[in-house]
Amino acid sequence: MNEKDESSQISIFDCVSPLDFRYYGQDMQLQEWLAPYMTERGRISSEVRVEVAAVRALANLGLCSGEIADEVAAAAERVTPEAVAAEERRIHHNIRALVNVLRAEVSAQARPYIHLCLTSFDVIDSAAAWRFKTVTRQVVVPQLLELLEVLIALARRERDTLQIGRTHGQHAAPITFGFAMAEHVSRLGNRIEAVRAAGENLRGKISGAVGAYNASALFFEDPQQFEREVLGQLDLEPSPSSTQIVEPEFMTDYIHALVSTFGVLANLADDMRHLQRTEIAEVGEAFAAEQVGSSTMPHKRNPWNFENVKSMWKAFVPRMQVVYADQLCEHQRDLTNSASGRFLPEMVVALVASAKRLQRIMSRLVTDPQRMRENFGMTEGLVAAEPAYLLLAAYGHPDAHEVIRQLTLDAQQTGKPFVELLEAAEELRPYLEQFTQAQRALLADPTLYTGIAAAKTEQLCQLWEKRLALP
Amino acid sequence: MNEKDESSQISIFDCVSPLDFRYYGQDMQLQEWLAPYMTERGRISSEVRVEVAAVRALANLGLCSGEIADEVAAAAERVTPEAVAAEERRIHHNIRALVNVLRAEVSAQARPYIHLCLTSFDVIDSAAAWRFKTVTRQVVVPQLLELLEVLIALARRERDTLQIGRTHGQHAAPITFGFAMAEHVSRLGNRIEAVRAAGENLRGKISGAVGAYNASALFFEDPQQFEREVLGQLDLEPSPSSTQIVEPEFMTDYIHALVSTFGVLANLADDMRHLQRTEIAEVGEAFAAEQVGSSTMPHKRNPWNFENVKSMWKAFVPRMQVVYADQLCEHQRDLTNSASGRFLPEMVVALVASAKRLQRIMSRLVTDPQRMRENFGMTEGLVAAEPAYLLLAAYGHPDAHEVIRQLTLDAQQTGKPFVELLEAAEELRPYLEQFTQAQRALLADPTLYTGIAAAKTEQLCQLWEKRLALP
Amino acid sequence: MNEKDESSQISIFDCVSPLDFRYYGQDMQLQEWLAPYMTERGRISSEVRVEVAAVRALANLGLCSGEIADEVAAAAERVTPEAVAAEERRIHHNIRALVNVLRAEVSAQARPYIHLCLTSFDVIDSAAAWRFKTVTRQVVVPQLLELLEVLIALARRERDTLQIGRTHGQHAAPITFGFAMAEHVSRLGNRIEAVRAAGENLRGKISGAVGAYNASALFFEDPQQFEREVLGQLDLEPSPSSTQIVEPEFMTDYIHALVSTFGVLANLADDMRHLQRTEIAEVGEAFAAEQVGSSTMPHKRNPWNFENVKSMWKAFVPRMQVVYADQLCEHQRDLTNSASGRFLPEMVVALVASAKRLQRIMSRLVTDPQRMRENFGMTEGLVAAEPAYLLLAAYGHPDAHEVIRQLTLDAQQTGKPFVELLEAAEELRPYLEQFTQAQRALLADPTLYTGIAAAKTEQLCQLWEKRLALP
Amino acid sequence: MNEKDESSQISIFDCVSPLDFRYYGQDMQLQEWLAPYMTERGRISSEVRVEVAAVRALANLGLCSGEIADEVAAAAERVTPEAVAAEERRIHHNIRALVNVLRAEVSAQARPYIHLCLTSFDVIDSAAAWRFKTVTRQVVVPQLLELLEVLIALARRERDTLQIGRTHGQHAAPITFGFAMAEHVSRLGNRIEAVRAAGENLRGKISGAVGAYNASALFFEDPQQFEREVLGQLDLEPSPSSTQIVEPEFMTDYIHALVSTFGVLANLADDMRHLQRTEIAEVGEAFAAEQVGSSTMPHKRNPWNFENVKSMWKAFVPRMQVVYADQLCEHQRDLTNSASGRFLPEMVVALVASAKRLQRIMSRLVTDPQRMRENFGMTEGLVAAEPAYLLLAAYGHPDAHEVIRQLTLDAQQTGKPFVELLEAAEELRPYLEQFTQAQRALLADPTLYTGIAAAKTEQLCQLWEKRLALP
Repeated sequence: MNEKDESSQISIFDCVSPLDFRYYGQDMQLQEWLAPYMTERGRISSEVRVEVAAVRALANLGLCSGEIADEVAAAAERVTPEAVAAEERRIHHNIRALVNVLRAEVSAQARPYIHLCLTSFDVIDSAAAWRFKTVTRQVVVPQLLELLEVLIALARRERDTLQIGRTHGQHAAPITFGFAMAEHVSRLGNRIEAVRAAGENLRGKISGAVGAYNASALFFEDPQQFEREVLGQLDLEPSPSSTQIVEPEFMTDYIHALVSTFGVLANLADDMRHLQRTEIAEVGEAFAAEQVGSSTMPHKRNPWNFENVKSMWKAFVPRMQVVYADQLCEHQRDLTNSASGRFLPEMVVALVASAKRLQRIMSRLVTDPQRMRENFGMTEGLVAAEPAYLLLAAYGHPDAHEVIRQLTLDAQQTGKPFVELLEAAEELRPYLEQFTQAQRALLADPTLYTGIAAAKTEQLCQLWEKRLALP
Repeated sequence: MNEKDESSQISIFDCVSPLDFRYYGQDMQLQEWLAPYMTERGRISSEVRVEVAAVRALANLGLCSGEIADEVAAAAERVTPEAVAAEERRIHHNIRALVNVLRAEVSAQARPYIHLCLTSFDVIDSAAAWRFKTVTRQVVVPQLLELLEVLIALARRERDTLQIGRTHGQHAAPITFGFAMAEHVSRLGNRIEAVRAAGENLRGKISGAVGAYNASALFFEDPQQFEREVLGQLDLEPSPSSTQIVEPEFMTDYIHALVSTFGVLANLADDMRHLQRTEIAEVGEAFAAEQVGSSTMPHKRNPWNFENVKSMWKAFVPRMQVVYADQLCEHQRDLTNSASGRFLPEMVVALVASAKRLQRIMSRLVTDPQRMRENFGMTEGLVAAEPAYLLLAAYGHPDAHEVIRQLTLDAQQTGKPFVELLEAAEELRPYLEQFTQAQRALLADPTLYTGIAAAKTEQLCQLWEKRLALP
Repeated sequence: MNEKDESSQISIFDCVSPLDFRYYGQDMQLQEWLAPYMTERGRISSEVRVEVAAVRALANLGLCSGEIADEVAAAAERVTPEAVAAEERRIHHNIRALVNVLRAEVSAQARPYIHLCLTSFDVIDSAAAWRFKTVTRQVVVPQLLELLEVLIALARRERDTLQIGRTHGQHAAPITFGFAMAEHVSRLGNRIEAVRAAGENLRGKISGAVGAYNASALFFEDPQQFEREVLGQLDLEPSPSSTQIVEPEFMTDYIHALVSTFGVLANLADDMRHLQRTEIAEVGEAFAAEQVGSSTMPHKRNPWNFENVKSMWKAFVPRMQVVYADQLCEHQRDLTNSASGRFLPEMVVALVASAKRLQRIMSRLVTDPQRMRENFGMTEGLVAAEPAYLLLAAYGHPDAHEVIRQLTLDAQQTGKPFVELLEAAEELRPYLEQFTQAQRALLADPTLYTGIAAAKTEQLCQLWEKRLALP
Repeated sequence: MNEKDESSQISIFDCVSPLDFRYYGQDMQLQEWLAPYMTERGRISSEVRVEVAAVRALANLGLCSGEIADEVAAAAERVTPEAVAAEERRIHHNIRALVNVLRAEVSAQARPYIHLCLTSFDVIDSAAAWRFKTVTRQVVVPQLLELLEVLIALARRERDTLQIGRTHGQHAAPITFGFAMAEHVSRLGNRIEAVRAAGENLRGKISGAVGAYNASALFFEDPQQFEREVLGQLDLEPSPSSTQIVEPEFMTDYIHALVSTFGVLANLADDMRHLQRTEIAEVGEAFAAEQVGSSTMPHKRNPWNFENVKSMWKAFVPRMQVVYADQLCEHQRDLTNSASGRFLPEMVVALVASAKRLQRIMSRLVTDPQRMRENFGMTEGLVAAEPAYLLLAAYGHPDAHEVIRQLTLDAQQTGKPFVELLEAAEELRPYLEQFTQAQRALLADPTLYTGIAAAKTEQLCQLWEKRLALP
């Protein structure tokens, strides 16, 4: 390999990853949030953190002095990814390189205790667990909660805004726009719980090269105590069992939680962009005055942010297959999950970038209640078909569904209002006369036929505020 | 469409699905277990079950008499998939077909109450939740537990059987074969908990065509009470929110639990088939006397059952992408998750078939401890390199890793035993002299260097017996 | 295993595959077309075909008499899947079972020549190549061509039907509906060529257990001649190299061709269902008089056939991952592609079922040119923004895009027609005056701004008729 | 968004993509090869190239002067990604930003002709086709050919090196190691042809916002001539049809070709790492003297390069799902393939990185013919079972397979050599006596039973040298 031997500085435009040159690399806020965990620098610093915790554990258990642990902790601050990379180029082993760099920073007395009883993947897997667990607490869940709050506010604001419910892209039965939003509130709330739980459940391991504590058992009566001592400093539980690596399923569950959250975001984005179709036009993204919609069609206002979220989802959801494939690790492990595992942080970056984008766009979503009502009006009469059929059936008509189906066909063919045809139907008269006042009112004005949409909206907002302890 | 209008009887050999003509269709026991839930007949009968529960709920809430509910329940027994399919061919709507068939079996008085306030997907989604929840309780978890018990017994039996731990396919550090099995016990135990939890958490919905309880609110003050009344009879909780369908994430989590369990089975199978390699030969499948290994190489004994499990895993794990794609459902739903959703039961069938196969094979797994020990001996000396380096480091050698790495290169080049070279190294003498008796013994006999493999094996067996309440 | 030991007859409703109990198993025409190739019965009969070809090749090369080859060919007719399955239950090897059954049908003289020099996968892989190649010629390509002809007819019929082109779901620039169809013609035409080429390129192999012709070299000077002799009878070329199996990439390319064709069908279906949205309503599926749209909303006309096609696509496209995974086969092969490979015919079945469904629906697609024109009118004025900007630029305006972008904002805010604002703009007067008559006419009537949509439609129809030699 | 507004310089260690900070960003040679095409800088420069070609086409067709085209071409050299990114931050449209930057570099006379008649995706898609087609010619195919040459040399070198062929991980029948390599030669050769063909077949489009040449038809009698004029300069053919974008299937086929090539590399890597298992040890990677195998087990020599290739394959193969998903683009297109499409270059980078790595490792692969022969010897006798069965059958034994199967069981149980048991079998005597001298020799020495392995090796090497015109 012809390796880069001078500076590691590059222009982001010389990167090949769209995350690096565009979605992450051009967003200072994302970088501020995620850099400590999801970059290579963050990775290395978290691995150094494990090495420091291990020496501290040795000290706590009496194998070395507290001074040595202090010395190592201080030296750890001076380890740079540049130095580690340079050493790795020499010896072709990334953790040994890190160890060598750290050792070079301490006294001869301290040196033997660095990495003592550890194997590379004690460090790598425990550091990864710490990194993903921490970024979940510090960034992923907070960002998803911010989006949730935006959606809750929107749901409440539009709680009573009449909208036609659509199934198969066809007008079906009335709802409110707030109710439609509340559905997304509930699904997102559910995923936030899932992400949080899976993040908290990530595990570390300090059990050596094949997981049998071979090395640490040389020094400790109870090597699992040493493991707990190291991991405790990282706020991690040990994996129940381990080979060279942690049981893969903790990470599998975690990435599943992220991927399935992405699906909820993508569904929201997809709905929003369809509601922006020229013929529907019920919602819109606020556009900046100087913003260009199309390079050649100056009048266009495209739902490109929503399209971006769906596109990122498409780009990332297949990566779950990588995680499933990496559940298979031969015997006490093979390394074929190593390169593939290095891409896992990209999933976090993409999800947070999409949540942040959605939060921004949804917080300034423009709705057009007038247009919603006009759209509703397109098939207003036919919407009454469902309650008409149900009431007929409930009042004893033996074949209500078929009778009403025929009436709707007549309405479509003749252009006459459905309700008019309904009332004109002699054979239905005996049933219609039994309807209550409220039931008749609803048939005459199907905008009333929204069920408990508004109440359910509020119910869902309160449910998730409470479960997620929102302020 | 030119539809089948006479008999629905076919030969399994005229099927196109390998499940139907081979893996499920030729296994009477699988059929007995799974048919009530995972076939089309099972699907229809579970949907009828929801219709019956709905009429019972109407009766409980006073909309119709208990006699009517009784009549419908009795009539439900007479609904056949053949009749439903025939009606569907006429009207091209599967749930309406089922409703029509059921209505035809009851009196005119009862007829209006059938499907009253329900939309198709109230029935379909609630029935699916019931079906997958029940099959999980009745079949999936019990079958996985049977496999777990086999693995626990095997782990205990081989708790002390020396085996070389392998990383990268290379000899690494010693373990016991039982310890290797205990790792699979732990991962499988963890997945059983995940499958059980996700199965129990499946949800139903009785909230109408767009999820706002439009229809049921015509009849009930609190339509959510009607929902709970229906679902309660099916031992289901309602989805917190719903459109025409249940929030998709409950099913997404459930299939993830199945898929990730499949990965654990596949990893076990993969390890077993590699341990059967001619050059390794540490384990073997018991072969029947009349069994043919190869059509042309009469001497072959192939690990075909393990290969089958891995192959089924490969065939099914990508289907998780379908489930993720189906998280997106436009507005109050589009039907593009309908056909794809019909394939979900195949995942259960494939997983149970694989678990059953593994249970059978692992329960008669033949191990060859003698061969394990011989294999261990191939690099016995080099195995001592790790403890030698660690002890040197612990006793203060400043560059133990590099010194030992050089010694192993010498050992490989000269063919001399590593331990001999170690003891001959003048510069190491001062450190070696400090080693304890036990530490010296271990260097002389690396078969002792198994850490806490045996104890950990027992610990894991007990842990999972307890958590899963095994007898 | 508790195997089925009596009848192999079942009801399709006891199947677990939706193909078997619904999409294939209820469609007599699909069964007629596909059963000879894509069922288990078809598989076994094609494998017998290879065995017969092999004996014939032995005879042609002088190892046995022509009478023996005749005898075997006659006996082959009597081999049933039931008998093979029964024998497999006894000996646990499917090809040896088939061989035993065939051997039992011939004289002692003929018996030794059956399967002589063959390994199982000579038979399995060559039979699969024959099966998929033949079904491609006989069914897949003809069905896709039928769909193509329907689309060509539709494109021509609607060649001049004005429709607004949509990008991002927003009105963009005018096209014709025929032009939109021609795009699908072209993409489908391209895929038909790809499917045909990949099908024709499937390969067989008669090179023995590890691909080195070890067995056949015992008997033939040039064992590759024997291979060509067998495969020639099946109209197959040999794989350039083989292990126990054919090079996997021929099948990988074939399934890719199918999967990517499925994507073209799904895109068409997706467009059609969106054009059926209540607010757009430009096309519709013809509904039968007795057809039910919704079990509870009698007025619904759902695009369920198009939804079905997209749903099937979602269900099947991830299976390409299985095929990619099966490119990896250890050494001279492991069997982990065996079970997974048995599912490949399902891809053909699903694709043909979807093509057939689309062909049926598209052939009776109802369009609403009046509605298309009304929709076009919604933003008629703004459509002129693009040509206005282009002409201004071409006539030398230095900042045409920005000027026009501002005008469209004004038009949207004031509600005034864009063209009116354009003509009122003093500063643009010098440029507008240079426009030709035709250019002015187009700005005044943007329905003329369809480019070469109609001509291109005809061009594409002719192109593909010619390339695919349509009648 | 809080965007980066100063420098675009970063440390690679602040990147989140493992390609950027490790696999690509630390390899100067890869950067040299791929940067002009696969980075963001390369993307922008290729898009400028299309803009320049379009102005040149305008000049060629008489819409502007050649001087203007020259001016634009010269100005194009001064466009930087930094300037484009800054402008995009202002107007939120990447191609309009590029156009603005380019326009700012030219005279007022030239300005109107820039981007005249183009829509963004004329530029983006044509530039992408040029970029991928060119990188395929310049880098991808040459790198794959270099690997192929290494494999051909290795196959020839080891043409006669006896190795046991393995099926199911079990010893099967003899081959040579060169023959095993020749299989990889053939599969790789086949994929190189596929990659080359798919790369050459990538298409551009200059047909405007909805593909109907609406804009260019304002200016040209035959706007397709303008399209050909632009694309001709880029050595591209136009897509037969287009919407806002090129028909997706050309790119779908191209990425399929890359992904399926990756599978061939991964299979090779997988085989190599298994052949390095301690118990097999037939091949090895040459290790540098200072290289560290394990951070804690100084004696380890891990096949980490082969593991890396397999791991990269696992990481990238699921991305094909993204490409299939992006075949669906609503109507004249939606933008949900935009962000996902930006990741496509990563596939090229990963594949080239893996090919380069394999080329390096395979070119110094160490083989151990002595060990191969020893491994062969483990089951030497049993290998004779296949020819023994075949010869018996050919000489008329009616039940040769079963007789030999029993003999191998005896051999395994008694530990006696198979050939000895064979010769001792009275009932076989009449058949054995008919065997030719050569046939007897082979049974006595199964190392001769390699079929045409050596000749086939040479045949395959020559075949691919010729088809790919290797020197």
